[in-house]
Amino acid sequence: MTGFAWLIGAGPGDPELLTRKAARCLEGADLVLYDALVSPETLRLAPRAQRFCVGKRAGQRGMRQERIHEVMIRAARRGKRVVRLKGGDPFVLGRGGEEALALRAARIPFEVVPGVSAAVAAPALAGIPLTHRGLASGFAVVSGHDELAYRSLLDTLAPHTVTLVVLMGLRSKASLAIRLLGRGWAPSTPAALLLASSTTSAHTWIGTLGDLGAARLPQGLEDGPGTIVIGEVVALAPIVTEGACFARAPARHIARG
Amino acid sequence: MTGFAWLIGAGPGDPELLTRKAARCLEGADLVLYDALVSPETLRLAPRAQRFCVGKRAGQRGMRQERIHEVMIRAARRGKRVVRLKGGDPFVLGRGGEEALALRAARIPFEVVPGVSAAVAAPALAGIPLTHRGLASGFAVVSGHDELAYRSLLDTLAPHTVTLVVLMGLRSKASLAIRLLGRGWAPSTPAALLLASSTTSAHTWIGTLGDLGAARLPQGLEDGPGTIVIGEVVALAPIVTEGACFARAPARHIARG
Repeated sequence: MTGFAWLIGAGPGDPELLTRKAARCLEGADLVLYDALVSPETLRLAPRAQRFCVGKRAGQRGMRQERIHEVMIRAARRGKRVVRLKGGDPFVLGRGGEEALALRAARIPFEVVPGVSAAVAAPALAGIPLTHRGLASGFAVVSGHDELAYRSLLDTLAPHTVTLVVLMGLRSKASLAIRLLGRGWAPSTPAALLLASSTTSAHTWIGTLGDLGAARLPQGLEDGPGTIVIGEVVALAPIVTEGACFARAPARHIARG
Repeated sequence: MTGFAWLIGAGPGDPELLTRKAARCLEGADLVLYDALVSPETLRLAPRAQRFCVGKRAGQRGMRQERIHEVMIRAARRGKRVVRLKGGDPFVLGRGGEEALALRAARIPFEVVPGVSAAVAAPALAGIPLTHRGLASGFAVVSGHDELAYRSLLDTLAPHTVTLVVLMGLRSKASLAIRLLGRGWAPSTPAALLLASSTTSAHTWIGTLGDLGAARLPQGLEDGPGTIVIGEVVALAPIVTEGACFARAPARHIARG
């Protein structure tokens, strides 16, 4: 008897930004393997399931990737309905592709359920349209986790061509900024740091590329999830958010750099 | 008495890929202004609302952008709960930013509800992870609607740096391919055309950049929504989807170019 697995995007944090399908899959799940960023409210949508955090948490290692595959495959082979719940979208900068290939190799039937990526949601919730007539007609998303990952893009992209979105890049913000300035991006280019987006601790810093490296983050959020946005569209944020009622109102937390 | 407006992302088409929050807002809406790509099933989630299609449909013009702003603002001023329902995410390649600025200028309170962008969902549903260790650590999204919009990115980006996602580019696929080949992208680079993703008419073409320009689309889908994906990650699609049970099973429609 073989069960079934779902690779599901949990969205940026707020359980209301989960898709209806994700909620339905969680409801019937027997086992949920979730990332550290998935909220307790979201997990409550899977009342029947055994739930394990497999992601990295502050100071603690997560479950090894191969072990995650093993647990999923073994449970599915015992007939379980297994949900692998990943922050954002399962196929954006996670290791969702590897998980899909592992399930495929083990002949476990599975389905991918796309989610709202923080790359898109974090800017939107801070009042930043990733594209806007006359300012940007496209955007690029890279991981700031290690330099090799973003260097190839940043070193060739002409300055100010698209809006730049860097996920998992809080620790690299200074070297990112130096690299872009060295490539000819203007120090006055608007830049934003979006922390814990869509949660009650949401915090927005808005400043310029020149100030980005030295921007101070509130205590406790330095190691959390963060999205960096660089480009002219960031200048729209204060206009869009002023007076607007935003989801979980990040506008109230805006600190100008 | 002032009402409220929501700029909501409807996701890629399947009403199950709407967020829980979007569904809740629709339930209570008095007026829904929706894009042509929003499905009838999705609209049924707003049973109380007056509903108007304001998007372009085959052969017909949509409502002028300024007129959309006027209608939203006037209804909100009469105390209505207004939903502007946009395909994908409201701030990705739509004119959501302009709508937010118009609402702001009119002092209408509003909220942005991010959605699942087709840029992310269409590849995921076809078994293409936008990023994958060793293949791509980032991706870029551009509009293929007009050449000016994508030229600045494509003409500077070094070949094979990131996965390239082009929305609204079905008609430009030949010129896109020529431009990338001219920039040094290998003709053997895997490429995909993803049509009507997440709907029952979903169709996937997988081939190479060299064949992309001449790829034939099924009748009736040439003018529909389409996502072009170019990069090594596309080569994973047949491996991931073979035998997998995918949402609305686009795998069954795979035609190799």
